[in-house]
Amino acid sequence: MSFLRLLLGRPLANREQSERKLGPLEGVPAMGLDGLSSSAYGPEAALTVLIPAGAAALAWLGWVMAPILALLAILYVSYRQTIRAYPANGGAYTVSKENLGAKASLLAAAALMIDYVLNVAVGISAGVAALVSAVPALHAWMLTLCLAVLALITIINLRGTLDAGRVFAPPTYIFVASFLVLLAIGVSKTIASGGHPEPVVPPPALPEAVETVGLWLLLRSFAAGCTAMTGVEAVSNGVSAFREPVVKNAHRTLGIICAILGILLAGIAYLVQAYGILAMDQTQEGYQSVLSQLAGAVVGRGWFYYVAIGSVLTVLCLSANTSFVDFPRLCHLVAQDDYLPRPFAVVGRRLVFSVGILYLAATAAILLIVFGGITDRLIPLFAIGAFLTFTMSQTGMVVHWRRELRTAQDARERHFHRVRLAINAVGATTTALALAIIIAAKFTEGAWITILVIPCVILLLQVIKRYYDELDARLRKDGPLSLVGQPPPIVLITTEGWNRLTDKALAFALSLSPDVIAVHLTKLDPDEDEEKDARLRRQWEEDVEAPAREAGLRPPKLVMIQAPYRRFRGPLLNLIERLEAEHPSRTIAVLIPEVVKRHWWQHLLHTHRARRLANSLLHYGGSRLAVMIVPWYLEEPKVEEAVEPEEAADPEEAVPIEMLEAAGDKPEGRR
Amino acid sequence: MSFLRLLLGRPLANREQSERKLGPLEGVPAMGLDGLSSSAYGPEAALTVLIPAGAAALAWLGWVMAPILALLAILYVSYRQTIRAYPANGGAYTVSKENLGAKASLLAAAALMIDYVLNVAVGISAGVAALVSAVPALHAWMLTLCLAVLALITIINLRGTLDAGRVFAPPTYIFVASFLVLLAIGVSKTIASGGHPEPVVPPPALPEAVETVGLWLLLRSFAAGCTAMTGVEAVSNGVSAFREPVVKNAHRTLGIICAILGILLAGIAYLVQAYGILAMDQTQEGYQSVLSQLAGAVVGRGWFYYVAIGSVLTVLCLSANTSFVDFPRLCHLVAQDDYLPRPFAVVGRRLVFSVGILYLAATAAILLIVFGGITDRLIPLFAIGAFLTFTMSQTGMVVHWRRELRTAQDARERHFHRVRLAINAVGATTTALALAIIIAAKFTEGAWITILVIPCVILLLQVIKRYYDELDARLRKDGPLSLVGQPPPIVLITTEGWNRLTDKALAFALSLSPDVIAVHLTKLDPDEDEEKDARLRRQWEEDVEAPAREAGLRPPKLVMIQAPYRRFRGPLLNLIERLEAEHPSRTIAVLIPEVVKRHWWQHLLHTHRARRLANSLLHYGGSRLAVMIVPWYLEEPKVEEAVEPEEAADPEEAVPIEMLEAAGDKPEGRR
Repeated sequence: MSFLRLLLGRPLANREQSERKLGPLEGVPAMGLDGLSSSAYGPEAALTVLIPAGAAALAWLGWVMAPILALLAILYVSYRQTIRAYPANGGAYTVSKENLGAKASLLAAAALMIDYVLNVAVGISAGVAALVSAVPALHAWMLTLCLAVLALITIINLRGTLDAGRVFAPPTYIFVASFLVLLAIGVSKTIASGGHPEPVVPPPALPEAVETVGLWLLLRSFAAGCTAMTGVEAVSNGVSAFREPVVKNAHRTLGIICAILGILLAGIAYLVQAYGILAMDQTQEGYQSVLSQLAGAVVGRGWFYYVAIGSVLTVLCLSANTSFVDFPRLCHLVAQDDYLPRPFAVVGRRLVFSVGILYLAATAAILLIVFGGITDRLIPLFAIGAFLTFTMSQTGMVVHWRRELRTAQDARERHFHRVRLAINAVGATTTALALAIIIAAKFTEGAWITILVIPCVILLLQVIKRYYDELDARLRKDGPLSLVGQPPPIVLITTEGWNRLTDKALAFALSLSPDVIAVHLTKLDPDEDEEKDARLRRQWEEDVEAPAREAGLRPPKLVMIQAPYRRFRGPLLNLIERLEAEHPSRTIAVLIPEVVKRHWWQHLLHTHRARRLANSLLHYGGSRLAVMIVPWYLEEPKVEEAVEPEEAADPEEAVPIEMLEAAGDKPEGRR
Repeated sequence: MSFLRLLLGRPLANREQSERKLGPLEGVPAMGLDGLSSSAYGPEAALTVLIPAGAAALAWLGWVMAPILALLAILYVSYRQTIRAYPANGGAYTVSKENLGAKASLLAAAALMIDYVLNVAVGISAGVAALVSAVPALHAWMLTLCLAVLALITIINLRGTLDAGRVFAPPTYIFVASFLVLLAIGVSKTIASGGHPEPVVPPPALPEAVETVGLWLLLRSFAAGCTAMTGVEAVSNGVSAFREPVVKNAHRTLGIICAILGILLAGIAYLVQAYGILAMDQTQEGYQSVLSQLAGAVVGRGWFYYVAIGSVLTVLCLSANTSFVDFPRLCHLVAQDDYLPRPFAVVGRRLVFSVGILYLAATAAILLIVFGGITDRLIPLFAIGAFLTFTMSQTGMVVHWRRELRTAQDARERHFHRVRLAINAVGATTTALALAIIIAAKFTEGAWITILVIPCVILLLQVIKRYYDELDARLRKDGPLSLVGQPPPIVLITTEGWNRLTDKALAFALSLSPDVIAVHLTKLDPDEDEEKDARLRRQWEEDVEAPAREAGLRPPKLVMIQAPYRRFRGPLLNLIERLEAEHPSRTIAVLIPEVVKRHWWQHLLHTHRARRLANSLLHYGGSRLAVMIVPWYLEEPKVEEAVEPEEAADPEEAVPIEMLEAAGDKPEGRR
């Protein structure tokens, strides 16, 4: 208990929820790390594709980056609209569900879930790989580092999204500030030098061209560069995390993320051309990332270089945080619709969906361990999910505005709706086009796996839904209470002998029903003493039957049954079956006395026969059986131990005292 | 279920116990592998100490081996006596308990338990090491091989001691037969050649002497050679495993083991002198064990050599089996006296003490993993336990015969008792002497660890005993049933809403008590719909309270309590506390409806709130509370699923039908 408290903090009450929501200041680190860190690998990915074209490629970079920036602008405007239209939750799942139907929403959910899981594994391993290439001494600790970063992000997110936003704010803003300054210096130097700045540390010479620039090369470069856009959808999927005014806060966060990302992408594209920087082959000795070459060229290898590059590494490692904010919220929505297990919808100790966080962490950990911390082969599987959900979300919005158009009366409103529709339609078309290019460009590299996995996930979601539908149909009760006037149950007490446990259980059983049978199982040990049973029977007559008879009660019978295989459940279930056949209208209640274990070591000292028996009876006993456990304490527990300080101090809505009084048959005094 | 059945076989009934016991044929492999395999390393250990003395040492070998053989003879005779005197169980624990008191018995138990655990780890790793040195390609798989052998021995022993005896009989008897033949050939060749036989494959030249033979060297050689005797006590500790006539079977088994061991030791000692074989340094390239050199010298490197050496390796690997037979039986005895957790005394599926077997396997596995499969450093810790228990057992027998002497009337009998006393006294003295030499010789090599650990184990045993004593004192009930005339309990039903679960639970609750309160916890989700609660309250009035009132019953109240921290137990325990204060003479029964999960995947789909609530209520609810679980099935279970075929087919002692009839208040018809 206290370790959990130390790790995750005190439990949060429901009424604290509004204080736990995000503003833009926390929203950008919490949800933006994925998007912002894309600037570190998006241009690099686009340039890597261009390597074979050599120096000539740089002249064409504008043709690749301009559509990416345009797409970013379109996405910004259209997600703004989505958030306003669906302020409760504007994620692709919700928008698809509302506008394109349940099946489309499952497609969006599956694509998003896969993308989030991949993002965690790929994000962390890419960050750690960059760190290791900067500090080669850490190479042996690659997987350990990955898992440590994963554990850190998991724990902070279990503490709450607000905590994540606050803890990760310093690295995020250091990264943003240092790169804005870097770009500003670079751009001013470039302008001052008339377009040909002198690099402080010259970048390596550009490679020889082995290929001419063609359309397919540019398209592949565009597809690779599109990874710079993953993470832009994060705000729309996590709208519910923002504080009031929700729409305004979400808009601001989205705006900040897109603006910074746009400036970074544009600035990087401009400066790599000015300084003549191209991506280097990662598998070669002496590899430097594009950002490292750029920073070196602009400001040299001073302290500023190390701050900037250090912040890039940190932000890359932490980019997984976006998944930790959005994935559990998505799963919560899907689970509320019964397509995912219900534990995903349970609100945890710190007002976040802990099961979703833990599931995400576990899945990512498995991926990291299976791939040994090097997840390069997962990258092609990656951007598809993001662009699929971009497209679906935009298409859903088109349907939304068409419906709004039909119902809108006001001409001015209709005009605005038409403009909105047009924006989302452009968004849908361009993202669909980008998606097609990405799939075509990456199909053979592994994108086909995503395309295969998505239908499997959808099938799983549907199977889960069917289970819950059936369960709910079976559990639904229409109409009033079934008042059959049940007689009291026949109570069976399992006993190991005449002791206080049995005594307490018998007294309780006699208060429930006049029909009590004590069951003693013999022959649990092949060498058991025959005399012991006879002694118990004598003792029973003397200490139980006689006093009960004297008190005018029907004496509890003692039944001894043999357990030739040393297991309780078979013989006991047989006895219960015969009792049920003998008394078709009666319920059987099995009363099991149990010594309550208060310490972990006590569990080692007991055989747990009582608890295992209770479990098997519940499992196999059938619906005419009920199992009662009568606890017996070595030391009486205190209620305070069961609750945390905040919970105990919390003023609860009291149950009216007359209700408690009324519960009793008659006042105690008159009994 | 069916996997367990496949792995361990069908469950065995108590009455099959006599068929599951051992004769000498199975007894020798089951209990003798430790003792017999000692012949492979005992002489080697003695010779290794003598290496520094070079060729001169061989002449002195007789002075080392003769006392060892004498000790073996003494041990044989005195353990024969012990077995006859304690036919139920003649182990050092029992003999010490009966004759030297509880504290001495704990010392014996601790020494034996430590020895058995070490024997498993050391035996397996020594066997695997020998195998690996013969087949160097297996070197990378050392630990895996160790764990595989451990798993094999564990599973076979979980199937039963008889199975172990049968499965391990072929390797045991091949080993014995091949070495008896080998020795016979060697001895006849030696005699035929007048004491100087020509080796087929000449052993390596004897090393130069760097030290002269002195008393301390011979004593250390003797101490090392004494490891050849570990395992001789096994039969006395496992007497309960033999079939009738127990004493005769145990005597025969002990006799066979000691005779073979004696012949092997004497033969090896004789032949190494004749052929001029000394131990080689294990750390050097080209190392060959003494037995390998000997077999090569006597018969050359033909198929017979490989059969003989292969059987040595197998027997070494399997020597751990002796621990698996004796350790669980010892723990069973100690647990019956409440010095070990009671699960150790539970008879398992196959009539062996499964918990002891699994515990032994787990501890040995931990040792193997921690030491990476190379347990050389554990060997010095080893023989102390065996010789300590030899001494204690013999001393106990001396006390035993002295007591018998005092009560014996017959002069002839008194004479026999005196002889027996003398034999055990000699045994006690010589083993004590050997123990002193072993401790002195091995103290600095690590024997001090054993001497430190033994008191810790004894302390632990005593702490466990104290716990059970206190538990039993608290549970003991003297005097008759406490008939306080308890009123029926106040029944609380936890409900998530109006459904079939609640309906069934309410009907059951009303059959137990007129005072029923349904508790609905709201605010489990911070965004919960307020309207839902109001709807439930209306539905409750309509579908529950109204029909109950009409039927003349007190209507079950619906109480809504808030769970601001989204946990049931705090608010519910508070409510229960207030109810208890309001109604000091009533018991509170909390009735929890639970959907029974029949498949593993169902567990993933439910939140388990019901079960977790039941557990916390039992843990913290206090002694006036009882917890009832009312199962609800998606598909009605069948009793047959709960029992295995044998169990179902077993003719049980039927409970008289009139007893079951009498259980019901009145015959069903008249109700």
